[in-house]
Amino acid sequence: MADLTFADIQALDASDPLAYVRERFELPPDTRYFAGNSLGALPKTVPQRLQKLALQEWGQNLVRGWLRDDWFQLPQTVGDKLAGLIGADKGEVVVCDSTSVNLYKLAVAALHLRPQRNKIITTSDNFPTGLYILQGLAATLGRDIALKILEPDEFLDAVDEETALLTLTHVDYRTGYLHDMDAVTRRAQANGALALWDLSHSCGAMPLDLNACNVDMAIGCGYKYLNAGPGAPAFLFVRKDLQAQVRQPLTGWMGHADPFAMSRQYEPAPDIRRLLCGTHLVPGLVCLDEALNVFADIDMQAVAQKSAKMGECFIRLMEQRCNQYGFTLASPAANERRGSQVCFRHEQAYPIVQALIERNVICDFRAPDIVRFGLATLYSRYRDIWEAVAVIVAVMEEQAWQQDRFNQLAAVT
Amino acid sequence: MADLTFADIQALDASDPLAYVRERFELPPDTRYFAGNSLGALPKTVPQRLQKLALQEWGQNLVRGWLRDDWFQLPQTVGDKLAGLIGADKGEVVVCDSTSVNLYKLAVAALHLRPQRNKIITTSDNFPTGLYILQGLAATLGRDIALKILEPDEFLDAVDEETALLTLTHVDYRTGYLHDMDAVTRRAQANGALALWDLSHSCGAMPLDLNACNVDMAIGCGYKYLNAGPGAPAFLFVRKDLQAQVRQPLTGWMGHADPFAMSRQYEPAPDIRRLLCGTHLVPGLVCLDEALNVFADIDMQAVAQKSAKMGECFIRLMEQRCNQYGFTLASPAANERRGSQVCFRHEQAYPIVQALIERNVICDFRAPDIVRFGLATLYSRYRDIWEAVAVIVAVMEEQAWQQDRFNQLAAVT
Repeated sequence: MADLTFADIQALDASDPLAYVRERFELPPDTRYFAGNSLGALPKTVPQRLQKLALQEWGQNLVRGWLRDDWFQLPQTVGDKLAGLIGADKGEVVVCDSTSVNLYKLAVAALHLRPQRNKIITTSDNFPTGLYILQGLAATLGRDIALKILEPDEFLDAVDEETALLTLTHVDYRTGYLHDMDAVTRRAQANGALALWDLSHSCGAMPLDLNACNVDMAIGCGYKYLNAGPGAPAFLFVRKDLQAQVRQPLTGWMGHADPFAMSRQYEPAPDIRRLLCGTHLVPGLVCLDEALNVFADIDMQAVAQKSAKMGECFIRLMEQRCNQYGFTLASPAANERRGSQVCFRHEQAYPIVQALIERNVICDFRAPDIVRFGLATLYSRYRDIWEAVAVIVAVMEEQAWQQDRFNQLAAVT
Repeated sequence: MADLTFADIQALDASDPLAYVRERFELPPDTRYFAGNSLGALPKTVPQRLQKLALQEWGQNLVRGWLRDDWFQLPQTVGDKLAGLIGADKGEVVVCDSTSVNLYKLAVAALHLRPQRNKIITTSDNFPTGLYILQGLAATLGRDIALKILEPDEFLDAVDEETALLTLTHVDYRTGYLHDMDAVTRRAQANGALALWDLSHSCGAMPLDLNACNVDMAIGCGYKYLNAGPGAPAFLFVRKDLQAQVRQPLTGWMGHADPFAMSRQYEPAPDIRRLLCGTHLVPGLVCLDEALNVFADIDMQAVAQKSAKMGECFIRLMEQRCNQYGFTLASPAANERRGSQVCFRHEQAYPIVQALIERNVICDFRAPDIVRFGLATLYSRYRDIWEAVAVIVAVMEEQAWQQDRFNQLAAVT
């Protein structure tokens, strides 16, 4: 294959069907941003929306905002808006709490739906908070729970008639490995288990079709590819025909059938609202509501194609220009098994990431040895990748710096 | 006692030592606001702080904001700032999640601290979400739990050697009855039980001294008298010497000893951070951070005195001018047993509240028959009370309107 040239990169940007979306974001000048999978960029309309919330809705309407400005409905209205992006129907998604809290709710709910089964299966590539939540649940639920944290190549065979729940992160946060949602869900269900997907690293970055895959439950976060800002509220999905049976442990008043009856006895709402808990944080919800408007006219197939193409370019340019520096590809080479990120292993990963960030190539270090580049197709350009690789070359070539600086940084990690 | 006159009211406003604080808030013109115990008013500096967060921290610093703008530390730094207001030490409070979620965490933690005991006692005047959370916990925890929801005059005698936890809302959200934190806590502890207080309706409205009362645990919300905006994050308190033993169920990564080690095994942080769960919502935290600045120079004894005086005035004016309209005082007459609110029962409470709100006297209806007036001493004036009572008189006098309108509204409730 011929080397990629800057002319090729320019041609890709020129023909990018998503190029027009970039102007919807506020981006700092001279920054090549590859951490949109950690914190998405700021949609330009969000600050005005926050000002309206503060000055008009809160400042002038005060407590009347709960009705007048529809604050009460936000978990559902924003959930409905999000549903279209993940292949869910209206009434199947609510936005609330954090991903961790939502995992707890749904994992306990799953155990109650399968009272005769005590096994929860997940994988070692699950995001750590997912593992921790399951550990905390197993330690405190006062019921014998067998939590199995298995390797990605062994978990499927472990699903059996003891298994209540199989829960996976759709995209491995380190390598970008993309699980096969359809096949895994069917395998779980063939054994009578429920399938719960964490979409934090895939929603907003690729087409998702939860209902086509017959997914039982899902969770995901708002601050990565959905661009709703630091710590944005999370969401959860329960497929419609399961909702009436679902009982979750965090039975706060927003999940009550009639919160303002202020009755003494909890009675779950008849629908997805029963998964809500306490009073919802309005500023986070309006950020997500506004951020989702960016997606209104976006063809998610085009997003997937651009993501695959960007990944290919990154991998090819690294082979072409950084072959001698000791990087190895950590992500799947096959587009269909790679999420919207490209990762490389390097024994000096930590100081390399620091050096790149200092030069305005914003990427992530993930322990122990991964340099991670998220690909946020809505606002990233092919030339950002070209420039990032050039900076990587420059960093690796600065030998004197490399020696002193790397040793110094390696000593503190 | 001589009738209160408008001149008396003017004199009270003129000599109010807290009068200068009102200008720190954005308030709509011509509104008499008595729902600050439901949603506090907007501190003037909050909108700029939100703009800085959006445009500079998120927009320009992007993911670097977690370190550069100290987002990571917010649950602790805002918690430390809040600690002074409730008689806690630094390192005893974190701001996170909702009040409901925090109650769940601490109630489960209390049960684990008292493994031989299975009784949880609370009162029927607890805010409904508190009751619901305890019911959900009892239903799902897989351990035999005896949840006792008792009347305010009987709960103390029920605390016994089976009791793991006594949990109360400090101020009854309907009547404003203020529990004796010191006496109740000591009674619980004398029986070996833990005491957990919900401060949602007292923090920011009166001096609190958790450590002087030897309180074990507390929770509270940010959007009432703390003025941090709709759905602001909640807080929790665990006294220092209990922290090392506390294990909570929602073991998300922000409670891990080293979140970014991304290890597979949960290990709780050595301090109050172990009560954290998922990624925290930064916009809500900066609103609370900013809102707490209002309190920096406030003498909370002066707040308590003004609250008591305002309550007295409201009660006296209602006796003076509304005696014939069928209101009865629902709040304690004694200042030392009344929180920062005054409530009246009336069989037409719902349509009366609607009529008052239409006339810009913003108060609350609480089922079945309560008209509730919160007293937010930082921005409310004595003349607001005078004007509110005048509006109540006008509403009650409009007989024709009263007949038609009340019947109409009563029919839909």
